Formats: sequence, C-alpha cells, structure tokens
Amino acid sequence: MKVGFIGFGEVASTLSGGLLDNGATVLTCLQGRGVPTKNKALEMGVTICNSPRELAETSEILISAVTPSNAVEVAREMGKYSKGIYVDINNVSPDTVIESLGMVKNKKTVDAAIIGSVKRNGYNVQIIACGDSATDFAVLNDYGLNIKIMGNEVGNCSTIKMLRSSYTKGVSALLWETFLAAYKMGIDEEVLEIIGQTEGPQFGKSANSRLLSSFNHSKRRYEEMGEVKKILSYSVDPLMADAIEQMFETIHEKKTKFNKNKNSQLDFKSYKDLFKSLNNIK
Amino acid sequence: MKVGFIGFGEVASTLSGGLLDNGATVLTCLQGRGVPTKNKALEMGVTICNSPRELAETSEILISAVTPSNAVEVAREMGKYSKGIYVDINNVSPDTVIESLGMVKNKKTVDAAIIGSVKRNGYNVQIIACGDSATDFAVLNDYGLNIKIMGNEVGNCSTIKMLRSSYTKGVSALLWETFLAAYKMGIDEEVLEIIGQTEGPQFGKSANSRLLSSFNHSKRRYEEMGEVKKILSYSVDPLMADAIEQMFETIHEKKTKFNKNKNSQLDFKSYKDLFKSLNNIK
Repeated sequence: MKVGFIGFGEVASTLSGGLLDNGATVLTCLQGRGVPTKNKALEMGVTICNSPRELAETSEILISAVTPSNAVEVAREMGKYSKGIYVDINNVSPDTVIESLGMVKNKKTVDAAIIGSVKRNGYNVQIIACGDSATDFAVLNDYGLNIKIMGNEVGNCSTIKMLRSSYTKGVSALLWETFLAAYKMGIDEEVLEIIGQTEGPQFGKSANSRLLSSFNHSKRRYEEMGEVKKILSYSVDPLMADAIEQMFETIHEKKTKFNKNKNSQLDFKSYKDLFKSLNNIK
Repeated sequence: MKVGFIGFGEVASTLSGGLLDNGATVLTCLQGRGVPTKNKALEMGVTICNSPRELAETSEILISAVTPSNAVEVAREMGKYSKGIYVDINNVSPDTVIESLGMVKNKKTVDAAIIGSVKRNGYNVQIIACGDSATDFAVLNDYGLNIKIMGNEVGNCSTIKMLRSSYTKGVSALLWETFLAAYKMGIDEEVLEIIGQTEGPQFGKSANSRLLSSFNHSKRRYEEMGEVKKILSYSVDPLMADAIEQMFETIHEKKTKFNKNKNSQLDFKSYKDLFKSLNNIK
C-alpha cells in the first residue's frame, strides 16, 4: 500500500508514523520544505518523490494535509495527475472541500476530517470520511488508522466537524461566562462542584482545560466561529454561534492586552490563576 | 425533631416523605389549601396545625416552600413568629432571598436551594445551604435529607443555583441550535455520534432529553434567563445569557404556534419527532 502526503506537517507525520509501523509505504515530496520537515521525513523512513507529479502518480491513496488556505490550489495542481484516491483531510469549510475535490480529474475523491486532537491521540485519532471512494480510503484501517465512513456526500464530513466544533466551542464560551462571574463572586469552586454532580465526575478537569485553551486559542476560535456561523445560517438563525463568536473576540482582546502588559504569555495551570491575572490588568 | 412546611406542594411533600420515614415529625397548616393537598398531607401522617402562627411557633425547623412570588410575603407573615430555624428553599433570586430572610425576627435563617429534580431524585435530591444557621439545618441529614453546607453568606446558594442553571440552560440552547441545523441537513445522527465520542457515552441520551425539555419548558426557561442575566451582569457582560434567553424565546414562539395548530401538545419521544413536527408547521 502506497500512501502519499501532500504537505508534511503534524497531521501528515503523525499518520505516517502509524502507516509505516503497520507496513505501508509512505511517500511525500519535499520541494520547498524547511530543513526540520525534511529531516523528520527522512528519519521516519518516508520515501521522497522528485516532483509533486511523481508523488501524485505513484500514490494509491493521496492525502492533502496542507495549510487550509492552500487546499484548493494544491488540488488544482495535483488533482490532474492523481491516479488513485484523492483525500482532502484539511480543516476547511464544506464549500471549500467541494471546490477542491471538484478539481480531481479521475473523480475518486474523499472528504475527510480529523475529530479531536492529533497531538493527544496520535495516529489513532478519529478520522471521518465521506464520498464515493470513502470505502477505499478506509482500507487504511488495516494499516493502523481509525477511519469511520459517514456516507457518500462530499462536504458532509466538513459540516459534521464544524457542527461538532460549534457545540464544543459553545460549551467553552458558556464555561467562560459562568466561571468568570462565579470567580468574581468568590463561589467558583462551589459552582464547579455542584455542576459536576449532574454533569459527571470529569467535569472539573474538563472545564479547567477548556477555560485555559479558550484563552490560549482565542484568536483561532474567533476566526473559526465566523465560518461556523456561515454554515449554520443556511438552516437556522445562529443566535448562539453569534454570541460564541463575540465571546472569543472579547477573550482575544483581553489576551492581547494581557500580552502587552506581560511581554510573554504565562503558562497557566488553572483557570483561577488565569482569571486572577486577567483581573489584575487594566 | 419537628419540621414545619409553609406550603405543601411537590417539594414539601417529597421531603416530608423522607423525614417521616426517618422518624421526624412533620407539620404544616392547611388553611386555604385545596382538597388534593389536604388529603395528601393527611394520608402521609403529617401533623396539621390550626394556624400559620401555631406552625411557626411549634417548628424547630420551618421550611418555606411556596410559589416563588409569595416567598417574601410568607416570610413577612411567618418570620415574626418563628422560634427555630427559618429556611427559604424557594427558587428565587439572591436579592429576593436576602429580602425574605431579612424579615425573620430571630435572625436564625438559612438560604437553601434544590439542585436537580425532586421528581427524579425524591427526598435524596441535593440541597445546598448557606447562612449562619446552615449547620443546624443540616441535622436533617440524620432524617434522610441530603444537605450540603456552602458557607455562611445568605444569597450564595441562590446564586450558585442560578449560575448552574445558566450553564445547563446554555448547553440545552447550544444543543438546540446545533441539532436543529444538523437535522435539517440530514446529518444529526452522525453529529450526535461524533460529539458523543469526546463528551462521553451518555451524551446521546442526555442531548435527547435536554432537547425535549427545552421545548416543553421553553416559557419557564425564557423567564428564568431574565433573572440569570441580571445576576451575571453584576460581574460580566452576559453575551451568552443574552443569546440563551433569545433562543428560549424563539423556541417558545414555535411552541405557541405549534399548540395553536394541533390544539394539544404531543408527547414526543425523540428530538427527531419534535423537529419533524416543527418543520411541518408554517
């Protein structure tokens, strides 16, 4: 089994680890790549192709894992040479994945999305896949990956991922509003305990990590909410998504002020330290 | 141990069941009560006082469990006679509980709040308690109740309950927006499955029940969010609470239209049936 990666960032290198461990051949092309990426690919035992065209023509399954804004351009360039299955696994909107896969000449395409964190889950991270060739892509489950087929319609996986992300970002925004108020009133521990009684024993830990990552990734979340709102507004009035977007914008403004004051970002261990520091800035 | 209840609705009768089972004497006054309430109290073996004053003077612990809008009036009337501990367990705002307990002459007061559902949990339902006399109230744990002390400050329990309620209502509003959109796109089951993978195995069941109860209790939730917003706005800009309030207002408008069309409310078993029916009305 020959699996090619367009781009060799964190997603590609993590999945490659699993594929190589389980006997697949992994290919990529390193033209225009930085030294650390080249070294990593060579150390892992990835086969290096001489040109993007060679990569596209040799791979039985070709996976596009690039910077989201390059997804369409890369598909335009590589899609005309792809002989096997072309998989777009990039974190892009449904419209973008439809546009990118529309460029693939042989029409053997898969819309795929990574659910959860590659960093935390490694190559066992959940991948969902839609499109006519999703079944052919899912043979990579025999090579260590964790792919779940979600139907034939290209665009659905991106939408599923976005709706999931809208929900989880909403929970984080809710936690922010609830616990910032509770912290200011001096009853955050009590509120945490009481909500935990109905939401389950992992609530406290998960709330803490969601509050910290809301602060650390406020900019990206704010930007992603714009995309989510667009998707939601095709079918509903996105009242919540609108508030979530504003919430992350507000958090990001605080973060910017905070960074200006401190010149460097502290590595907070608990939401209490975070809220305390935010309270201290003007 | 003599425990008196002002009001004898669902909360009072459920807690009385536990207290009586565990050897306490339960008292109430049935002046102006309806026949079903009277019969229930008599059947359970509750001791009937001849006047509110007798109830207040005889009870070692006097619990106000009335219609929220009557909490202050009842405290004004009974607080002057209360010789033991006066507990306000009504679902009222911090301002209201502070006002009501301020009427109690002997100052032996407790701000208490019920967390979760009396219907589901019976007399074992979680009760939280604040105020100088909270420890004295908590002796009722020896008589079957489940009271947790949350500090001395009257008003805190109401606030904790409100912040919890703001969070859980927010989750419901988020579920509504996310799953109504997913349902309209025909990918609700997929989104449910994928969110469940990170949110835990009970996610599907809990989401379904939250969606149905959001519809069934839309009016009450909309009204309660107004109170919650007020409390939050003392310390934060309530962006999320504002959206949640609008969301329940929207759901309630749909419900009103729906009831007009159908002349009766259907007992939906799943969110799918609910969304299907809502889609069919103009």
